[in-house]
Amino acid sequence: MNPMQRKASYVVAVVGASGAVGTEMIEILEERKFPVGELRPLVSARSAGTCLAFRDHDVLLHELTAQSFAGVDLALFSAGADISRKFAPLAVQAGAIVIDNSAAWRMDPKVPLVVPEVNKGDLARHEGLIANPNCSTIQMVVVLQPLHKVARIKRVVVTTFQSVSGTGKEAMDELLEESRDLLSFKEVSPSIYPHQIAFNCLPHIDDFLPTGYTKEEMKMLDETRKIMGDDSIQVTATTVRVPVYVGHSESVNIETQMKLSANEARALLAEAPGVMVYDDPAHKIYPTPIDVAGKDDVYVGRIREDESIPNGLNLWIVADNLRKGAALNAVQIAEALIAAAQ
Amino acid sequence: MNPMQRKASYVVAVVGASGAVGTEMIEILEERKFPVGELRPLVSARSAGTCLAFRDHDVLLHELTAQSFAGVDLALFSAGADISRKFAPLAVQAGAIVIDNSAAWRMDPKVPLVVPEVNKGDLARHEGLIANPNCSTIQMVVVLQPLHKVARIKRVVVTTFQSVSGTGKEAMDELLEESRDLLSFKEVSPSIYPHQIAFNCLPHIDDFLPTGYTKEEMKMLDETRKIMGDDSIQVTATTVRVPVYVGHSESVNIETQMKLSANEARALLAEAPGVMVYDDPAHKIYPTPIDVAGKDDVYVGRIREDESIPNGLNLWIVADNLRKGAALNAVQIAEALIAAAQ
Repeated sequence: MNPMQRKASYVVAVVGASGAVGTEMIEILEERKFPVGELRPLVSARSAGTCLAFRDHDVLLHELTAQSFAGVDLALFSAGADISRKFAPLAVQAGAIVIDNSAAWRMDPKVPLVVPEVNKGDLARHEGLIANPNCSTIQMVVVLQPLHKVARIKRVVVTTFQSVSGTGKEAMDELLEESRDLLSFKEVSPSIYPHQIAFNCLPHIDDFLPTGYTKEEMKMLDETRKIMGDDSIQVTATTVRVPVYVGHSESVNIETQMKLSANEARALLAEAPGVMVYDDPAHKIYPTPIDVAGKDDVYVGRIREDESIPNGLNLWIVADNLRKGAALNAVQIAEALIAAAQ
Repeated sequence: MNPMQRKASYVVAVVGASGAVGTEMIEILEERKFPVGELRPLVSARSAGTCLAFRDHDVLLHELTAQSFAGVDLALFSAGADISRKFAPLAVQAGAIVIDNSAAWRMDPKVPLVVPEVNKGDLARHEGLIANPNCSTIQMVVVLQPLHKVARIKRVVVTTFQSVSGTGKEAMDELLEESRDLLSFKEVSPSIYPHQIAFNCLPHIDDFLPTGYTKEEMKMLDETRKIMGDDSIQVTATTVRVPVYVGHSESVNIETQMKLSANEARALLAEAPGVMVYDDPAHKIYPTPIDVAGKDDVYVGRIREDESIPNGLNLWIVADNLRKGAALNAVQIAEALIAAAQ
């Protein structure tokens, strides 16, 4: 079932339009010339009534209510899992296709979890609701899939360096304020994070589970298996917040069934959609968050054979977590739905 | 051979006394009441002539020359590998015991490479020169050794988050200036690092080798094996510079021969010398660089069983890279030599 109809233009709602990801979604819709007939930015009562610019016009921010989705073709949600749980079913009932950026339905077997470069085919079986994966998972699977196809990935050991924009705008403000205060020799008092984030690293993203893992770390296992469609892939993750505004970096160690040399991996990745190989250490070329912020591709560098096991590789993967890690991937899902409706 | 004589006090030279590690060495000598009879701080011609405070006295910084070591009992070197290669043999010839913090002799089979908690016994075979390991290796082996003794470590996958003080004072200034400039919307122009370090992560520490690994990454393999006295241990490393002033963090995944539960690992580490278990995620307790700066112990938290293999553990290890990672370890080596001379 694919209720996305072929139309000249679509009524597009963006839920959480004033947030870090929502803002990026609207920019990307404009940038990619997505056929938006009407943009309906939906926000909390607190933010409603102000305007945002879209294609040189001011568009009013509306309060999100149960009635917001009348006539909506496509609703992009990025306002947290609670809002998604409450309002996404209403949007589907109203006839919209929902692409949800929260964790609310990602592991629901009836909901496709999609990264278009990896499992566009899963879109065919949607029932009105499609989940956008977690930022740190998206950028990893875009790079793993081309290697998995050829060499079968058995195990992944990943450590992340995640930027504060993954938490949201308030976290970006907190990093800014703490940095300023510390440079002026003032005390800081964290409110968004449990500890100081400026000039520090926090091995704590999302809530802790009784096992000692965070939910973020488990997403990297569960979502990777679902997107790549292979429950035999083992993943162990340590996720860390770093004082970076935009761009998540990942140190990824993989073990494959078949041997891949670093050159073979580089060649496979050079051909892979959505991947930019940026790997020339002799010339100090490797991706960093600063370089990759604002870019659409997932960048990979520091590709090395891991000599500690027979079939191992180390990779350094960096992407803009607001774009490919969230807003861009959601819009790419919508584009894939339209393409499939042709 | 152990020429360290039992004396009431010692003439102690510190080579590189004005650097980040040298300054810390002098502070630690004072703090730990090391029996310093005369302190001889040695620096480049450029820094000579100024004074530093030691036990409420001003001590003149002298220019390092071939004649600097007459009468010196103990020389602590931290002025880079070139200075060590040139001057450490002269110091040994003059009768001093040298504890060298550079990479110059670490892998020389005649030179013990020592972390007192791990391989104090190797000091017995020194020939006047003892090497202090690399900062990122020291903090890792202090935690690995107690686990290795019981469960035999087969393989380590480590990713580091290293502070700029590991590079030196100029790098700390660069992070400060770049942070200030960026907060004032000014352009930055890196000089110590090849790319902007403020609000960024650089997967590049020390020089690149033709394999694509950095020297820092290979130190974590080679030095770990030498210190732990076991060439069967496999280590693969990715070392990353982060915008933190003091304190290195490490995400360490280990595979052991015998199964260790997280609780067993926690109990072993709670008993281990120089280790502080700081691991109560339910109460948001895990080590961060900010907490650990200025502390002597190596902190470990986020201790979790890695379910991706039968015998795996994940650890988050943080230490003050200027103290345990450099200056403190060097002074502890000197203390161990004195204790052995009793």
